[in-house]
Amino acid sequence: MHHTAHRTVTVEAHRAKVRALLAPLADRVETVPLRDALGRGLAADVVAPLDLPPFANSQMDGFAVRSADLPDGGAELRVAAPVPAGAEPAPLVPGSAAPIMTGAMIPAGADAVVPIEQALPDSFPAPGAAATVRLPGTPAGNYVRDAGSDIAAGATALAAGTFLGPGQLGLLAALGLTEVPVHAAPRVLLVTTGDEVVEPGSPLEPGRIYDANGTLLEASLRQAGVAVTRTGISADNPDELAQLLHRHAPEVDLVITTGGVSKGAYEVVRQALADHDVEFGPVAMQPGGPQGLGSFEGVPVLAFPGNPVSCLVSFEMFLRPVLSGLLGAPAPRPVVRGRLAEALSSPEAKHQVRRGSLGPDGTVSLVGGAGSHLVHALARSNVLVQVPAGTAALAGGDEVEVWIL
Amino acid sequence: MHHTAHRTVTVEAHRAKVRALLAPLADRVETVPLRDALGRGLAADVVAPLDLPPFANSQMDGFAVRSADLPDGGAELRVAAPVPAGAEPAPLVPGSAAPIMTGAMIPAGADAVVPIEQALPDSFPAPGAAATVRLPGTPAGNYVRDAGSDIAAGATALAAGTFLGPGQLGLLAALGLTEVPVHAAPRVLLVTTGDEVVEPGSPLEPGRIYDANGTLLEASLRQAGVAVTRTGISADNPDELAQLLHRHAPEVDLVITTGGVSKGAYEVVRQALADHDVEFGPVAMQPGGPQGLGSFEGVPVLAFPGNPVSCLVSFEMFLRPVLSGLLGAPAPRPVVRGRLAEALSSPEAKHQVRRGSLGPDGTVSLVGGAGSHLVHALARSNVLVQVPAGTAALAGGDEVEVWIL
Repeated sequence: MHHTAHRTVTVEAHRAKVRALLAPLADRVETVPLRDALGRGLAADVVAPLDLPPFANSQMDGFAVRSADLPDGGAELRVAAPVPAGAEPAPLVPGSAAPIMTGAMIPAGADAVVPIEQALPDSFPAPGAAATVRLPGTPAGNYVRDAGSDIAAGATALAAGTFLGPGQLGLLAALGLTEVPVHAAPRVLLVTTGDEVVEPGSPLEPGRIYDANGTLLEASLRQAGVAVTRTGISADNPDELAQLLHRHAPEVDLVITTGGVSKGAYEVVRQALADHDVEFGPVAMQPGGPQGLGSFEGVPVLAFPGNPVSCLVSFEMFLRPVLSGLLGAPAPRPVVRGRLAEALSSPEAKHQVRRGSLGPDGTVSLVGGAGSHLVHALARSNVLVQVPAGTAALAGGDEVEVWIL
Repeated sequence: MHHTAHRTVTVEAHRAKVRALLAPLADRVETVPLRDALGRGLAADVVAPLDLPPFANSQMDGFAVRSADLPDGGAELRVAAPVPAGAEPAPLVPGSAAPIMTGAMIPAGADAVVPIEQALPDSFPAPGAAATVRLPGTPAGNYVRDAGSDIAAGATALAAGTFLGPGQLGLLAALGLTEVPVHAAPRVLLVTTGDEVVEPGSPLEPGRIYDANGTLLEASLRQAGVAVTRTGISADNPDELAQLLHRHAPEVDLVITTGGVSKGAYEVVRQALADHDVEFGPVAMQPGGPQGLGSFEGVPVLAFPGNPVSCLVSFEMFLRPVLSGLLGAPAPRPVVRGRLAEALSSPEAKHQVRRGSLGPDGTVSLVGGAGSHLVHALARSNVLVQVPAGTAALAGGDEVEVWIL
C-alpha cells in the first residue's frame, strides 16, 4: 500500500497495532535448560511435580517431640538418637526427644519442635550418651514446616508468561526440574539511516553527527533479550535501503529502522517502503511522534524517528512493553508514582515522555528539556516521566507516573 | 585464625566488611568495545571530546533565517537553495530564507529557524524555482539547537562508576567513541553444600531436597554481570570441601558457599574453613542471620546460609550492593517507598527482609511469611521489603522502603 495521510493515533492505539503486528512471535517456543532460561519468558504453565517442602521438617535447631508428651508445665524427656540430615529418621519413641537440625525430616510420631534455646540444658548431649532434657509445654505444629506448605504437588508453580529471573529459576530447581519451555528470543535487524550519520571512530566532517541510535537501540534490544543483527548505517538512497532489507529480512522476525520517517522532502525510509504494506503517521507523543509500522516482504517493520531520545522512547513505549506482554520477557519496567520537584509544561494533545531522576524519597527531578536530541541528559536519567495527553501543565509537588529504566 | 564466638553485627557493619574484603576487585580494569560494555561499570571519567550537538542545527523543518530580516510583523524573503543534510551549507545571503530540515546545520549568517507551519505558503517550493515566502517576526535563536547545548567539549560526559546501560552507551557513541575502560567482571566459584541436597533431575530419596541455591545464586550472579563457576553439590565432608576449594580458588576472585554455617554439630563450611581466616557470626538480619566472611588461601570467601530465601537475601543485601558500589555494576536496585497493605511483625533486634509485591499505586503486599524456605513465595515477589532493626511491628498503611528486584 502506498502511504497516504494518516490521522494522529494515540500512544495506546499505536501500541495495540505493534502488538497485533508482533503477536505471531509468541508461537515460537523452545525447551531449554534452566541455565539458559534466565531472562526468558515462560511459554506454558508449570505444575509442581512434588510438594514444597517435600516433607515436614524442622524450622529450628532443637528437639523433635510429641506435643502430647509436653503438656502445660513441660516435662523431662529422654534424649533419643539425633535425626540424621538427608535421610528418613527412625520413628520417635513416646516419651523421648530427638535432637534435630533445621531442615531435617520430622520423625514419624513427632509433631512439634522445641528450639534448643528453650531446653534445659540448652545444648545437645554427646551422641550415644544417655541423657534427659527438660522441655516446656509445647503445642502441636510448633516450629514445624508442613509438607506442601510452600506449594502443594499439582498446583500451578509458575504461570505461562512469567519472566524467569533468579527467584523463578530457583523455584523450578527446588521442584527438581532441569529444563523449561520458553518463548524463543526474537531476532531483529537494526538499520540506522541518514547521509549525515557516520560511524563512531570515523572522522567527523562538518554537518555530520555520530550514530548514537545503533548503539543505543542495540543495547536496549539486547538488554531485553533480543538477538540483534546490525547492518551499519544506510545512506539516504531508497533503492539501496530496499535492497538491504530484501537481503536481510528473511533471517529475522522484525526490522527496525531509525530516521527517514518525517514529512520532509528526503525521507529515505518512507521512500524505500513506499511500495510495501507500511503505514507512516504521527502518534500523539512527544518525542517520538513520527512512526512507521507494517511489513516488508512478510516481515514486520517498525520505523522509528531519527533522534536518539525519540528512538529510546519509541522502544520503551511500544516495543519493550509489547515483547514483555507477548513473550513474558523482558520483565516489565517497574511503574511507580513520584512527586515532581519542579513544574513542567506539555503539549496538551500529546502524551509527553520526559527524562527524569527518581530519588529514594519519591521526588522526580526532570533531567534536560523536552528536546529529543539531548542524549547526555538521557544518560543521566533513571526514569521516564509519563505526562498523558490532556495535561498542559503540572506543578512542583504534583504526582506523576514514572517508569524505572 | 580459628573461629571463635562473635558478637552479632548489624547489616550495615557486615556490608562494610564485605566491601573491605572485595575492594581489590576494583583494581582490575580493561578497555572493551562499546558493544561489550553493556551492563559493565565505567572505570574512569569520560571527558567529551566534542560538543553535542557538534554544530548549531535546526530543531524543526522550516526556513533558516537572519532574525534581523524578520522584525515584528515579519517580511517577505527570497527562498534560497535548501540546506543539504550532512554537509556544511553555503552562508545565508541577507534577505533570503533557506529551506532546512530538522538536524541540519544552521548556515553561517542565519541565527533562527521559522517552522514550515508558520510560513506562507506553508510548503517548500520546488528546488531551483525562483520563489518568495512570507514569514512572521522571529527572534534570534528561535528553534536553534546551539552547539554544545547538550554537553560541551571538555566537560565530564560520564563519571567513573557509572553503570553502562543503553542511554550511557548511546552517549559514548554520539561522542564518537568506540571503546571504554570498564571494571573487569568478577569471577565467582559457587559451591552449594549439604548431604541432604541433590541435583535437580535426580531421584529424590526421603529426607532430601533439590538444590535450589545453586540455580538461584548462579542466576543472581549472572544477572549482576559476574562470571560463575559451579562445582556441583559438596557433601558434608570438610576435608573434601577444603580440597575442592584448594583446587578451584586460584581461578576466581571470590568463593561463595551455601549452607553449613549454623551453630549445629555438623556444619561443613565452618569445619572446612576452621583453619583459615574466616569469621563466622550472626548478622542481625532475618532471614540470613548466619554468615561467614574471610579468605581461603588469599581468595575472598562469603559463606551464605543454606535456605534459598536466605541465600537470595544475603546476595541482595550484601554482595550486590557492594559490587554495584565498587565496580559501578550491576545497577543498584531501585529503592522506592510504598505503603503496606497489611500489618507485619518483626524481631525488634534484627533487620527483617520480607518478600512482597509492589503495585503501581505504591501498595506493598507481603508474599508468604517470614520463613526462609518459602521459595514459591519468593518466585511470586517483585520487591524486598526492608524492616530495619528497632521496629517490632508495622500497621497496614505504614510506609516502608522496598527494593525492586
